This record gives sequence, structure tokens and C-alpha cells, in this order.
Amino acid sequence: MTESTSPAPSGSGMLRPGGRTARVRGAVLRAAEDALVEAGFAGLDLGDVARRAEVGRTTVYRRWGSAGALLADVLADMAEQSLPRSRTGSLREDLRANAHLVRRTLADPRQGALFRAVLVAGACDPAAAEALHRFYRIRLDEWAPCVTEAVGRGEIPPGTDPREVVRAVSAPLYHRMLTSADPLDEAAADRAADAALAAARAGAFVSPPAG
Amino acid sequence: MTESTSPAPSGSGMLRPGGRTARVRGAVLRAAEDALVEAGFAGLDLGDVARRAEVGRTTVYRRWGSAGALLADVLADMAEQSLPRSRTGSLREDLRANAHLVRRTLADPRQGALFRAVLVAGACDPAAAEALHRFYRIRLDEWAPCVTEAVGRGEIPPGTDPREVVRAVSAPLYHRMLTSADPLDEAAADRAADAALAAARAGAFVSPPAG
Repeated sequence: MTESTSPAPSGSGMLRPGGRTARVRGAVLRAAEDALVEAGFAGLDLGDVARRAEVGRTTVYRRWGSAGALLADVLADMAEQSLPRSRTGSLREDLRANAHLVRRTLADPRQGALFRAVLVAGACDPAAAEALHRFYRIRLDEWAPCVTEAVGRGEIPPGTDPREVVRAVSAPLYHRMLTSADPLDEAAADRAADAALAAARAGAFVSPPAG
Repeated sequence: MTESTSPAPSGSGMLRPGGRTARVRGAVLRAAEDALVEAGFAGLDLGDVARRAEVGRTTVYRRWGSAGALLADVLADMAEQSLPRSRTGSLREDLRANAHLVRRTLADPRQGALFRAVLVAGACDPAAAEALHRFYRIRLDEWAPCVTEAVGRGEIPPGTDPREVVRAVSAPLYHRMLTSADPLDEAAADRAADAALAAARAGAFVSPPAG
């Protein structure tokens, strides 16, 4: 799945159209991301976020209530801001586009730190885990049609589980980031995409018949 | 890679041979694991570990000094206690054995919580990350010969990077655990092994020529 979000326009007041409520949400979510990048989920404090966002504490406490709820809204926003899937007409190129987007996201100092923070939150807190799972479901659903369409074109076998193919592209990049100091380079992204494609062609992601 | 550690014999005094020093280390490491399982890396406190291990605080502070150093020793011990690789004579069976061992480890309530805790620590703390990377290097080195021998038997192409194949087996299981609520079931383990094998056969893990 692709996690990269569109570049934020400069000036938090310009982040989102829609009046004061949307501007406040934008400023608070950007401040929450800053806090997550700097101090992780353990350092996500509503008072600190209010200060960073230059928004009243009462507003932040009333609207988000807890660090968990704020994190869930950060993840909902990350899903909203995420880039759409590619449509190259070739599964190989679509999976490579996905792999390179995931790689760029995780290798980016700010986005990478943000993703590590939300993964940590998901491993520590059940409500955060639920929000994190929702984020990844949305991203899988965005990219799954690349695989479904490739089945339609006869590139890979019928019955291939689209979500498992998309996951297979991301998984080695996340694993590399979390378990090694090896660089998240373009070769790693190409290998992740090509391995997922080879496995899909060989039928490794064909779901067993239901029932 | 396989992370499962051998079942601990009951009675912390029997954990390790080698006299009082080894017994103390065993009791402290088991207590540190308990603390990590219950409260994560953020809850790893040397005084608490000393109390749980029924060992003097001074001993623990003098020998380990910090939560990071204690975590590094927990990881070194996990590597020492980890099960050896399989030797089935077939890459398919070896990768399946690896996948099922990783799956059992991550799905086990205690071991799974312990692995989540050390992954979180690695994402939060540079010294912990180094210890975590060392653990995974040891496990990769343990399993890599399964792949090298398969190259020798002609099962997969020459030049296949053994570590990338072993990583490809683990990666989807870790990714599933961290990003979804989907069960870490045996079908997921089989699929991870079979996908890595198909990709290896297709040459997806052949290293580019050096230089």
C-alpha cells in the first residue's frame, strides 16, 4: 500500500479549505504530527499540541479528548491526504509505482518518523491499533484494483487475492526499516515489487476456495 | 528468520547452568522479559526488574546500568536461545518450517508481546535499534544456509541473495501483525513461504553484480 501523503502547502491556515473548524483541525493535526515525529506516541500530549497549533487547550480537549482519539484523527487525515494509486496498465509498473511510493515515504525523515510513531502506537494501544488497521485497509482498498485489473488482463491467475499482493509489496520495506539498518534504497523497492509480481504470477496469492 | 526461543524450563534457578552469575543473569533476563511483555519498553525499569527477579538493585544497576543495556542483553539471550534452522533437504520445506516458526512465535501471547516490545524499542531508541538489528542478523545468518544449499542443489538461480529470501518469508507475517487485525494463521505462513519460494525461483532475489 502507499502511505505517502501529498506535500503540505506552506502556512497552516492554507492547509484545508472550509472555514475556521477545518483550519483548526488542520493546525492541530499538523502539530500532532510534529509531536509524533519529535517524541513519538508516548510524547503526544493534548496541551502541548494546543500550544504548537496556537489553538485553545479547551478546544483541543473538547474536540479530541485524548491522545488516542487525536492519533486516530491523524491517521484518518493521512488516509484522506494519501496519493491515489497508479494506473499504468501493467501490473509490473503498478507494483513498482507502489513500492517506490512506500519506499519514499518510509525513507523520508519526517514521514518515516511519523510512520514509525503510528506503528509504535498501534503496537502499544488497542484504540490506536484499530485506527492504524483502518488506515491500512483504506490504502489496500485503494491499490487492490491494480491487481484485479491485472487478473482481467490475464497477467496473473484468477482468484488472486488483491490485498495479499499489495501487502507483499510493502511488507519487505517495512520489515527492512524495522529490523535492520540496511538502506531503504530503490533496489529494495524494485526487488519488493518484482518478488510480489513473480509470486503472484506463480499463483502464490490465489485464495483457497471459500467454505 | 526464526525468532522462536526454546521453551524456558520452569524455575528460574534452573534456567542456565554456570553458577551464581549465570543464575542471576537468567533471573534478571526472565524478569526483564516479563516487564517488557506487561508494560513494553517504556515500562522497563531496573528497580522493578530487580524486585521481580529477587536480585539486589545494586547488582542490576552495576551489571546492566540502563534499560537500553538490559534490553540489549535480553535480545542477545533471545538469539542464544533461538531454535536452529531446519535441514529438510528441500527449500520449500525449509522455508515453510521457517514461516511456521515465525508465525508460532508472533502468534504466541507472551512471545508475540515480547517481539512487539523489542520492535517498539528499536523504533524509539538508537541503542535498542542496534541490538535489535544484531538479533535479526544472527537469525538471518542461521537460516541463510538453507538458501545457499538450495542454490547448490539447483532449486533456485545462482547469485540468489540468501538473506533476502529469508527476510521475504518473515516480512509478510510481521507486516500482518503490525498493520492489521487479520489472524496470523497457518495459511498466512504457508503463503509467505510459498511466495518467497516462487519469487526466488523466478530470480527476484538474484543480487546485481558487484561493482
